[in-house]
Amino acid sequence: MEDQTQQEQVSPTVRKRVQDSFDSQGLMAHLGARLTHIGPGRVHIVLPARPEVTQQHGYVHAGATSAVADSAGGYAALTLVSEDSDILTVEYKINLLAPAAGDYLEAIGTVLKSGRTLTVCQLEVYGGRGGGERKLVANGQQTLIRVDRPAQ
Amino acid sequence: MEDQTQQEQVSPTVRKRVQDSFDSQGLMAHLGARLTHIGPGRVHIVLPARPEVTQQHGYVHAGATSAVADSAGGYAALTLVSEDSDILTVEYKINLLAPAAGDYLEAIGTVLKSGRTLTVCQLEVYGGRGGGERKLVANGQQTLIRVDRPAQ
Amino acid sequence: MEDQTQQEQVSPTVRKRVQDSFDSQGLMAHLGARLTHIGPGRVHIVLPARPEVTQQHGYVHAGATSAVADSAGGYAALTLVSEDSDILTVEYKINLLAPAAGDYLEAIGTVLKSGRTLTVCQLEVYGGRGGGERKLVANGQQTLIRVDRPAQ
Amino acid sequence: MEDQTQQEQVSPTVRKRVQDSFDSQGLMAHLGARLTHIGPGRVHIVLPARPEVTQQHGYVHAGATSAVADSAGGYAALTLVSEDSDILTVEYKINLLAPAAGDYLEAIGTVLKSGRTLTVCQLEVYGGRGGGERKLVANGQQTLIRVDRPAQ
Repeated sequence: MEDQTQQEQVSPTVRKRVQDSFDSQGLMAHLGARLTHIGPGRVHIVLPARPEVTQQHGYVHAGATSAVADSAGGYAALTLVSEDSDILTVEYKINLLAPAAGDYLEAIGTVLKSGRTLTVCQLEVYGGRGGGERKLVANGQQTLIRVDRPAQ
Repeated sequence: MEDQTQQEQVSPTVRKRVQDSFDSQGLMAHLGARLTHIGPGRVHIVLPARPEVTQQHGYVHAGATSAVADSAGGYAALTLVSEDSDILTVEYKINLLAPAAGDYLEAIGTVLKSGRTLTVCQLEVYGGRGGGERKLVANGQQTLIRVDRPAQ
Repeated sequence: MEDQTQQEQVSPTVRKRVQDSFDSQGLMAHLGARLTHIGPGRVHIVLPARPEVTQQHGYVHAGATSAVADSAGGYAALTLVSEDSDILTVEYKINLLAPAAGDYLEAIGTVLKSGRTLTVCQLEVYGGRGGGERKLVANGQQTLIRVDRPAQ
Repeated sequence: MEDQTQQEQVSPTVRKRVQDSFDSQGLMAHLGARLTHIGPGRVHIVLPARPEVTQQHGYVHAGATSAVADSAGGYAALTLVSEDSDILTVEYKINLLAPAAGDYLEAIGTVLKSGRTLTVCQLEVYGGRGGGERKLVANGQQTLIRVDRPAQ
């Protein structure tokens, strides 16, 4: 089921909308994060581990872990709203379950409920290694609000 | 009362411990954040607004806002534990109350309860401008755990 | 300042609206809770300790503590919206800081931010004794949404 | 998978420990809640809808929803710790996704991570009807701490 979900793709229009927004987030580029999957209601972001994103023990900082989790949830929500809408984070809560070790983090945002005004997402962050093992390092829950996109 | 609290200072030993740990967080340097106050149970961190920390509308990204809030709470907790202890974030929840606009963000972590094992902090983030006005842009609550510091 | 805030009262219309809604909550009556202060953006609810609200150690159950905290925040939000609006809880997070001991709990909901659609409240719960001492036993943060009140 | 998990049972000793603790919670009896499944790391609690647990619109109150969710998570954690340990809720966050309508609520607590000191649980609450349909009405995340059980 997991694999099937990951195959599901959004339309080229939605994909472009999400990618363009992601590319305009200075923080994501500065952290070195990249979008790796854009499905309907589900987005993956990968963050390579490097000294620029660490805390005092050399693991990925909870703030960087949260940043990619927050963006993954936000873009998961964005895939399900109309083109004239934008999505803002209202709040989120995240548990850091284990040291964020590994070669990279993979944050997965999944829409639990998409309402007219509010969206609720589940956030998961895995620490992965080249060899393929991965471990859940953070788990969270996020509330987002749909707002009208300002006319360009 | 606020001003008085801000005057209260920790011992030079505690100050050095907090500053050294902060300096070893690659993410804080990479974001451009700096420690501006270290009081007993209360730490301030300032993050200048610049393109490297923005989201898609040019405001500071919720992830960067959270990163400095999380660190401010973590160091506030660290000021109150013994020298052989370290502090890890268990979880936090943060509400983004307003667009994180301004010339800089100031994150304030304040210990609400310091227990033997767990510490609970309040997190506040203000958006400030050169002229001195500031506005609450995020508010959160954080749980941290004391762990034994590994022998060096 | 605390005392002054507690003196501030809402209009009789708002007071009646809040009290009527509270009185229609079966759970509040069943728990034995009562409204003790209705100020603009700030509501207090008192819950007497008795066997019907305990957990396994005889302290007030986290669920009862949360129930009065949630209602206090909800009614604090309700004092600030127009008469044709109702308020629903979107989510909340609560830390149980200490055993909820004492003769009664006092839950205080305070509006941190009142927006057009969303309200964010701080939640505090104190354990009190007849003699007057009280202790913070829980602290939380809550997001609420304004909805149109169904026509009667 | 769901069904298989639900078949898994804990040992009679653990079952008795969980049931005894539940039976000593005055609030659960007062609300009319009952334990319906005790598996390793997974506990279900059912709360019949009745006027004593409602909010102002006649749905189950967020406080009652949270109370059974909190207990379900706490007992799920309790199934995985040694006999001389007890479990206390540190904090939880819950999103109310839909009106808690139906004939009963079913709260499910599932351990996500069981550590030496802390346990993290996922909380789900479904609204169910006699006919068998059910709907997710609340979703949360909870942190718990293991404490030594007081000698009897």
